[in-house]
Amino acid sequence: MIKRAYNFNAGPSAMPLEVLQEAQAEFLNYANTGMSIIEMSHRSPEYDTLHKETKDLLRELMEIPEDYEILFIQGGGSTQFLMTAANFFNKERAAYINTGVWSKKAMAEAKRYGEAYEAASSADRNHCYIPQEFTFKPETAYVHITSNNTIYGTEYPDFPKFDVPVICDMSSDILSRKVNVADFDLIYAGAQKNLGPAGVVIVIAKKAFLATANEDLPTMLKYSTFTENDSLYNTPPVFCIYMVNKTLHWIKRQGGVEVVAKNNAEKAQVIYDVIDNSNGFFIGHADKEYRSKMNITFNLADKDLEKDFVAKAKAAGFIGVGGHRLVGGCRASTYNAVPMEACQALAEFMKAYQAEHSK
Amino acid sequence: MIKRAYNFNAGPSAMPLEVLQEAQAEFLNYANTGMSIIEMSHRSPEYDTLHKETKDLLRELMEIPEDYEILFIQGGGSTQFLMTAANFFNKERAAYINTGVWSKKAMAEAKRYGEAYEAASSADRNHCYIPQEFTFKPETAYVHITSNNTIYGTEYPDFPKFDVPVICDMSSDILSRKVNVADFDLIYAGAQKNLGPAGVVIVIAKKAFLATANEDLPTMLKYSTFTENDSLYNTPPVFCIYMVNKTLHWIKRQGGVEVVAKNNAEKAQVIYDVIDNSNGFFIGHADKEYRSKMNITFNLADKDLEKDFVAKAKAAGFIGVGGHRLVGGCRASTYNAVPMEACQALAEFMKAYQAEHSK
Repeated sequence: MIKRAYNFNAGPSAMPLEVLQEAQAEFLNYANTGMSIIEMSHRSPEYDTLHKETKDLLRELMEIPEDYEILFIQGGGSTQFLMTAANFFNKERAAYINTGVWSKKAMAEAKRYGEAYEAASSADRNHCYIPQEFTFKPETAYVHITSNNTIYGTEYPDFPKFDVPVICDMSSDILSRKVNVADFDLIYAGAQKNLGPAGVVIVIAKKAFLATANEDLPTMLKYSTFTENDSLYNTPPVFCIYMVNKTLHWIKRQGGVEVVAKNNAEKAQVIYDVIDNSNGFFIGHADKEYRSKMNITFNLADKDLEKDFVAKAKAAGFIGVGGHRLVGGCRASTYNAVPMEACQALAEFMKAYQAEHSK
Repeated sequence: MIKRAYNFNAGPSAMPLEVLQEAQAEFLNYANTGMSIIEMSHRSPEYDTLHKETKDLLRELMEIPEDYEILFIQGGGSTQFLMTAANFFNKERAAYINTGVWSKKAMAEAKRYGEAYEAASSADRNHCYIPQEFTFKPETAYVHITSNNTIYGTEYPDFPKFDVPVICDMSSDILSRKVNVADFDLIYAGAQKNLGPAGVVIVIAKKAFLATANEDLPTMLKYSTFTENDSLYNTPPVFCIYMVNKTLHWIKRQGGVEVVAKNNAEKAQVIYDVIDNSNGFFIGHADKEYRSKMNITFNLADKDLEKDFVAKAKAAGFIGVGGHRLVGGCRASTYNAVPMEACQALAEFMKAYQAEHSK
């Protein structure tokens, strides 16, 4: 039996062991075809079944209303920064809520299309919270928000009601907790955190909103290319979608999103408790009410110890505990597939490390 | 032992059995990390090594000069249709050589940027040949060609010399035969035929040509975003690149591109021989001098028999023998990973089918 790493990577990140085992078992022979899933035509009946089932499962698990499309698009969240703006920036302005690096990148991309402005920002306190006051200017086409901020470890506890269409980057917390899809006009999420391997983005969008899109765009930048061809205008990233399918089945077997959300809250709490009970040895970055259950960001009060902590953690088998290369510090990403056991082990490691270094 | 299908899919398509077996064996534990390759950070030293090695192997196998960049981009060939035009349509006109569906799609995308014109076309005879005469207009930024035409089963036997920069879609024959990379300014190829799973495009481009690119573009449409960040601006499709790496190792073990090319010529000939010796029962689509060694397209003289032939072939374990959905007929794609044994089996099947239906 292989010892599994304690994988706290921020993305690509841990996948459920069962999902990996299933994929491994049938890697040479998908559905008794004598072919690997990656050798099969995307126009084959077998793939077609898988494609449809993946959408159906997602619709079921997230309770996606029938008037929403589900699309699979390549290019990562970064391509969605561009596509959302190119398609929907159809008034003078578009609003962005700046909760950190990714929302800023999304806004930067939108500036090509008009006045992309910050309706709110948490930059004043290094993005340790989610702003609750928003100022929208007239002629705002949409507001773009980032539901969970991987780098800073914050999340929207609840989603505010906005009076303009809402586009949400849900890359790092999709399916980690219950959301009311009807509150959003377009949701996008790269798969590589809670859903599968890097290489596919899931887009969930209201049909009425899609109908407002700019059609004067290159083929591959139009959402309509994907809606009109059921995401099969060109070859989709078959393996990624296949792994998303298996991950959705796994979530369903866990008991669905609510059970997974409960587990996630408990897992994160185990680590936040260590931080909160460390008498200031560990310092959480995010304000408590905005703490992410996916990305736990913290520092050591003694900055000089941080590198040592990360190195010792790695040596002890805890992978991905260094903070994002742009901000440093420490981070443990506890996505859906990270087991409680790994969180408990990290909590124990942190306590032992503190004990050793507080002598 | 699983019986492997005789896989003649046009893409995604057969992969080398050894490559699949290697990937399967280490799917839960890449390089002794206790993680699957799809669970690893794209910023990890392990992935970095893999990323670099993949480029080095490609450079070695294709003898890519040092003044060429190697990039990994998502979005398929269709996104390259857009990116090549958006980046390099910097004069009044751009020339396209129309050898079928894919080159037409590339040209259609370019029309947004100026006068994209056909410098030559094989449409007059349903794309059964490669035109040898080209007429370039003044102020032509580049010429775009498709080296192998998957749907029609034609290929450039040799590449003409052009006096404008050359962009080549090599999706369906990259690494199937020796090409002189220095004859091209930019080569792109979706992985899903000769290189790996769907989800990554390999771009090989001359640095001096890249330097002429339009920089006033969205981040994800600029080649410079990929060159300046070694294709790691955002998360790359790690699993696809990993499989490309293994496939390149496999090509090297075969003896390199020249050995693979010789095998490909022999494999294709086995099937072309059946067509040519069928007394007109099977009719090859392409003129002999332009026949593709990757996609063998043919019809049955008795059109009414075609559906039956494809169905019987499928029942006998030959997958993907139906022609492209846009043109019909029959097609056998004999990419690098399709073994001679499969080609011989198909040849025997075709002969037996003819014998049975010529009574």
